[in-house]
Amino acid sequence: MKTTPLKGMKDILPREQRIRDYVQGEILRVYRAAGFERITTPIMEDLENLDKSDGGDNLNLIFKVLKRGEKLEKAIAAGSEKDLADMGLRYDLTLPLSRYYAANREALPSPFKVIQTDRVYRAERPQKGRLREFVQCDIDILGDESANAEIELIDVTARALLAIGFSDFTVQINDRRLLRAMLEHFGFEKQTLDTVCVTFDKLDKIGPQGVENELNEKEMPPQAVAALKAFLEKGAFRLEDVAAVCADKTLAETLARVIETVKTLSKGKYAIEYTPSLVRGQGYYTGMVFEVSCAGFPGAVAGGGRYDEMVGKFIGQKVPAVGFSIGFERICSILLDNGYEVPDEKKSLALLYRPDADFADVLEKAQHLRAEYRVTVLAAAKKTGRQLDRLQQAGCSAVCFYEKFPEIKMLEVKQ
Amino acid sequence: MKTTPLKGMKDILPREQRIRDYVQGEILRVYRAAGFERITTPIMEDLENLDKSDGGDNLNLIFKVLKRGEKLEKAIAAGSEKDLADMGLRYDLTLPLSRYYAANREALPSPFKVIQTDRVYRAERPQKGRLREFVQCDIDILGDESANAEIELIDVTARALLAIGFSDFTVQINDRRLLRAMLEHFGFEKQTLDTVCVTFDKLDKIGPQGVENELNEKEMPPQAVAALKAFLEKGAFRLEDVAAVCADKTLAETLARVIETVKTLSKGKYAIEYTPSLVRGQGYYTGMVFEVSCAGFPGAVAGGGRYDEMVGKFIGQKVPAVGFSIGFERICSILLDNGYEVPDEKKSLALLYRPDADFADVLEKAQHLRAEYRVTVLAAAKKTGRQLDRLQQAGCSAVCFYEKFPEIKMLEVKQ
Repeated sequence: MKTTPLKGMKDILPREQRIRDYVQGEILRVYRAAGFERITTPIMEDLENLDKSDGGDNLNLIFKVLKRGEKLEKAIAAGSEKDLADMGLRYDLTLPLSRYYAANREALPSPFKVIQTDRVYRAERPQKGRLREFVQCDIDILGDESANAEIELIDVTARALLAIGFSDFTVQINDRRLLRAMLEHFGFEKQTLDTVCVTFDKLDKIGPQGVENELNEKEMPPQAVAALKAFLEKGAFRLEDVAAVCADKTLAETLARVIETVKTLSKGKYAIEYTPSLVRGQGYYTGMVFEVSCAGFPGAVAGGGRYDEMVGKFIGQKVPAVGFSIGFERICSILLDNGYEVPDEKKSLALLYRPDADFADVLEKAQHLRAEYRVTVLAAAKKTGRQLDRLQQAGCSAVCFYEKFPEIKMLEVKQ
Repeated sequence: MKTTPLKGMKDILPREQRIRDYVQGEILRVYRAAGFERITTPIMEDLENLDKSDGGDNLNLIFKVLKRGEKLEKAIAAGSEKDLADMGLRYDLTLPLSRYYAANREALPSPFKVIQTDRVYRAERPQKGRLREFVQCDIDILGDESANAEIELIDVTARALLAIGFSDFTVQINDRRLLRAMLEHFGFEKQTLDTVCVTFDKLDKIGPQGVENELNEKEMPPQAVAALKAFLEKGAFRLEDVAAVCADKTLAETLARVIETVKTLSKGKYAIEYTPSLVRGQGYYTGMVFEVSCAGFPGAVAGGGRYDEMVGKFIGQKVPAVGFSIGFERICSILLDNGYEVPDEKKSLALLYRPDADFADVLEKAQHLRAEYRVTVLAAAKKTGRQLDRLQQAGCSAVCFYEKFPEIKMLEVKQ
């Protein structure tokens, strides 16, 4: 039998688990204090729901669950792949939340401020820092169309990141509608905007010249590419410049208000900046999108945006929605790599007993010591010297020999 | 798009989630105080591992995950069901733990006292109280062959149940080896013991006559059935009676010691009793098995046993192991049905603001109030009367109108 976990999935050892539980606890504490309520949805969803969810590339990465019994026999006889499965593992928490809200909205408050912290699945090619099973921590506000929802999500997510010891991070923000309006103004056609955005999203990686080359390869109208190039060459990209070339002034005004408000709230502990090339992968975003990047760590540690059309797909009635998701795995792996140790609430103590001890009394003494320590009951080894060394290396702070109770011997911390 | 969750799976609403989080928190607190460490394993396992895991009937209930890409194309061309999947969702936490221990044992302490609280999957026919996705809370001790491991698991599990408000429960205990030795003594053949045990397990449901009838239908040796019947007719089943007909006296002595020790530890808060017909479904149990039943609630709220052979399947070297699993779903549904409300650490307050308010200042005032309250920020409705009613009904204890900050209006609790 194979002892390794499946490809792209991992076993969590106790030390990493302590960090994960601590991080999740702190995030939940901050979110709950702000009146958000936790819910849970099943990890499996109807495959048709997943397929229709505008999940972008993620739709190619869905793990499908095989049908059973007669249904499966029929599908095999038909010999077609698409009939073999009718359930899939979710690739994010946004589609399940939208379904959940559609199903339970009568029982939920409006606006609904909700927490989800749970596993999602993507059949990606496994690589360092990219897992096939991973945890996301999301907060969402459903039923609030105002940009105050965006502000509150950014404020609360930033406070969660600060609570777990992250600082020196930057919230990057954009509005997809603003980007699309600007590109249309330059002369790109509406139906090509998705592919133009894909190229534009790479601005910080390939630079203005790279963007121009790629758009030419994609055979975009030369005068549109030229207009965009001229704009890019003006250098630093300011929201005012983009606003100046857009017909709808309220989009830029609202984005400016969000940025100003968050700046005030941040008290200088973190930054927020307009990032005109930010697009984000999911197809379901309809308005503002945002990401958190952290000095010294590549990629985003959190991301989100507004998705006003998703719930409507279920109930035929538009429900405004915004979400922000913390990349839990990335956060935990940064802490783990940096040798982070979770502060122990109580020191740990080993209560060592000999085979002839009255075990009921051993456990009662252990319970007594638990007022002050986290107590593990262990059979004493014949030679206790090596046992004490091992306990010490494993982070145990104290021992008590049952026959000498309540005498406690403190162990020196080994580094 | 479908709004309901998949068959046998459920959406957790905020009130139930609060109970679940509270129950899990209390269980973890008790387990951690006793020196157990939490780990996590992936929800998917290699299908071959699952198939070889002696899981009894659960092996027929595995959700299988479809292969992908070329592998899948080949399997479809071959037209055989068993080639379509090579991964499955776990049906319990014991097989993954055994694989985990085999893979990571060099990095783990011995004995290893471990907590798992996580989801498992069984494709059962959905019915009240039986889900296809559900949570188990397990503690296990690996690497301790003495019955002290059983005693400690029972002690700690019982304390967890007491901590979440359960009392008046009974731990039922048996040793499969004792049952098998007795049945062999009566003249049943070794290779028929599994099926005899299945019938014997029903003693409390079908009575001695039912057991006799079923064994006769199974064409067991008449003199063995008669010997068993004579024994059953003696009435109350005492451990001493079973010990008297068994060659190996140490099994009964050890079981008696476990029962006596737990009785002492229980201080009369719960009961423990020898239940000679207790077998439990899983094929992997090798020694003692136990269950917790609770007055007024059908079925078990917790169950476990010793499985000394499972880890050895992975590494070819025997590692003694015992586990105890709390039926988290059953516990939570009992609390939910009884109208249980989790005590709030902080009262909840709604901070209501008008559209023209300075939102940065609104959020700063909210943060200020969070020292004392759980604060939700909400846009004030035009008519606040109805809004206050709704907030009150949703369990909100206080409101603060932003323009009147720091004046707080308490809401009367509505029942």
